[in-house]
Amino acid sequence: MDGDFMRAEIAEQPSIFRRIIGEGRPRIEAIAGIIRRRMPRFVLLAARGTSDNAALYAKYLVETRLGLPAGLVSPSTTTIYHAEVDMRDVLFIAMSQSGSSPDLLDALTFARDAGAHTLALTNSPKSPLADAADLEIDVGAGLERAVAATKSYTAELLNAYLLVAALTGRDDPELDSLPDRAELLLTLEPDIARIARRYWLAQQIVVTSRGYNYPTAREGALKLMETSYLSAHGFSGADLLHGPVAMIGPGFPVIAIVPNGPGGEALAPALERLGEQGADILVIGPRRMHPFGAVGLETPGDDAEVLSPMLMILPLQQFAWHFARLRGNDPDNPAGLSKVTRTR
Amino acid sequence: MDGDFMRAEIAEQPSIFRRIIGEGRPRIEAIAGIIRRRMPRFVLLAARGTSDNAALYAKYLVETRLGLPAGLVSPSTTTIYHAEVDMRDVLFIAMSQSGSSPDLLDALTFARDAGAHTLALTNSPKSPLADAADLEIDVGAGLERAVAATKSYTAELLNAYLLVAALTGRDDPELDSLPDRAELLLTLEPDIARIARRYWLAQQIVVTSRGYNYPTAREGALKLMETSYLSAHGFSGADLLHGPVAMIGPGFPVIAIVPNGPGGEALAPALERLGEQGADILVIGPRRMHPFGAVGLETPGDDAEVLSPMLMILPLQQFAWHFARLRGNDPDNPAGLSKVTRTR
Repeated sequence: MDGDFMRAEIAEQPSIFRRIIGEGRPRIEAIAGIIRRRMPRFVLLAARGTSDNAALYAKYLVETRLGLPAGLVSPSTTTIYHAEVDMRDVLFIAMSQSGSSPDLLDALTFARDAGAHTLALTNSPKSPLADAADLEIDVGAGLERAVAATKSYTAELLNAYLLVAALTGRDDPELDSLPDRAELLLTLEPDIARIARRYWLAQQIVVTSRGYNYPTAREGALKLMETSYLSAHGFSGADLLHGPVAMIGPGFPVIAIVPNGPGGEALAPALERLGEQGADILVIGPRRMHPFGAVGLETPGDDAEVLSPMLMILPLQQFAWHFARLRGNDPDNPAGLSKVTRTR
Repeated sequence: MDGDFMRAEIAEQPSIFRRIIGEGRPRIEAIAGIIRRRMPRFVLLAARGTSDNAALYAKYLVETRLGLPAGLVSPSTTTIYHAEVDMRDVLFIAMSQSGSSPDLLDALTFARDAGAHTLALTNSPKSPLADAADLEIDVGAGLERAVAATKSYTAELLNAYLLVAALTGRDDPELDSLPDRAELLLTLEPDIARIARRYWLAQQIVVTSRGYNYPTAREGALKLMETSYLSAHGFSGADLLHGPVAMIGPGFPVIAIVPNGPGGEALAPALERLGEQGADILVIGPRRMHPFGAVGLETPGDDAEVLSPMLMILPLQQFAWHFARLRGNDPDNPAGLSKVTRTR
């Protein structure tokens, strides 16, 4: 059936989480030990597409947990303008499912030659990117066949989380139950299928969240663009108020990712404003945040906010899958995309 | 008339450029002298909305010209998660038209207390942000009354350019003719008005460019969202190929900013792909890039690419103005926005 690969890969995520936490962790801790000896002072992250959203999550972690300034690299400064950047004391992390995009390879190679300590986080351990980097972490999602990335995304998030946890010596007690919680959340699929039907005529949508789940909003929007050809935006609630909110009129569909914790609470002003403008809001999150929306998908229990991006994206992946199928698209083979994208 | 403020402010930009290059420059050079004595090793930029697009341009300049690693700050890491980031050797630049958003003020104050050298680039020299920073540059656009920022944006770009030029001791010979070139470009308004009529039923649009003009694409899209309530995306040509291109079907309107120089040339693969998918492409740039598009707006002469973001945005501002008026909107007072946005 069209979409079988993507559907199976979505369902695989809890077991991948289990495997990464069990088997991947010791390797990540060894890598963290090597990084600690070089003591980076700044962290740069380079990625494209879905991995760029994972890199944004990693950037939040580096700032909030590692306490280092961080930036997302524009590879074009290397590939187009041949910038000579002083990379001493920089940890340069490239994240890529395929490890094959020439611009990431060039940016990493340049950074290494300019003095950075380089790490490739990929789902393709034999890739050019992994070969070029000083250090390498195989994110361990296994072969991904659907063009729209799902399991490689959450695997990147979890590996980034574990890396920062190993570097700081601090993780969250909720980590061990992450695979079970992912499994529980995936059982809400019938609700997602029902909700997706509400939207089948939509031409545009906004997905919003804040903090650790801003990447979730961007990745959810990207999945909808890729699989359903919908003009989907992913905004932080704060950025939304600085301009884009003007386009949200009555009935404009908005999906709000409202996790437990301060990130979810900080979204309240944006949700209030969206409500005033008559937006049609689907709130995904715990029940107490549902009064902000016209429709809700209740996520079970209380998750640690820092881990919630690995959970909150799951219903959005399912939503994109059902939505694409409803509209007669093949979620495994989006128009004009291939699994490996090579940009310069 | 509705939109008089925005229209007048668009027209004012050449004379503001003249004033900044003439009178603003010595003050910027003095500030650069102070920054040089502290020798930053890393640059962080914090901004929201239109200023965030200006900050992205500044980030490119810092990397390509100053040769320092740079990052765009997520203010929420301070305001929501109270991250304690090691800010030694960091130059922290906050850019804001109003200088009044509490999240920027908090992020800058935290950075200063954590050891960063802080600079506020604002159009409101008496603002809380300017008061809190170690150093301050008044971008000198003068009072801006339209809610959709135009002249404060290009003033921020030009001030950022001059700051980096002063720090490196290197500018471009084309700088002196920038005001005249802006004036010439603005005379194309009748063409813009004619072109805008082609789009009046559009509900969605993509604006794309690469390199120094990626911020132009984002800012052009933001203007269309703010004034015309259009679901507008601004993508780099490379990011577009990593997923979003799937949503571009036959007739999908795309505006491509194709400047002289390597950034414009690097856009070619994306334009080719968009053409294959049947997109309706308006190319804004020199004539030799027009074969990529169905419609063209020819920019006169050859601009230095690094300066072109201050020029290429002008027709997009005019486009947004005409487009809003055609659709019966008041570009001076977008629904749901006010001139000063305060987010936390």
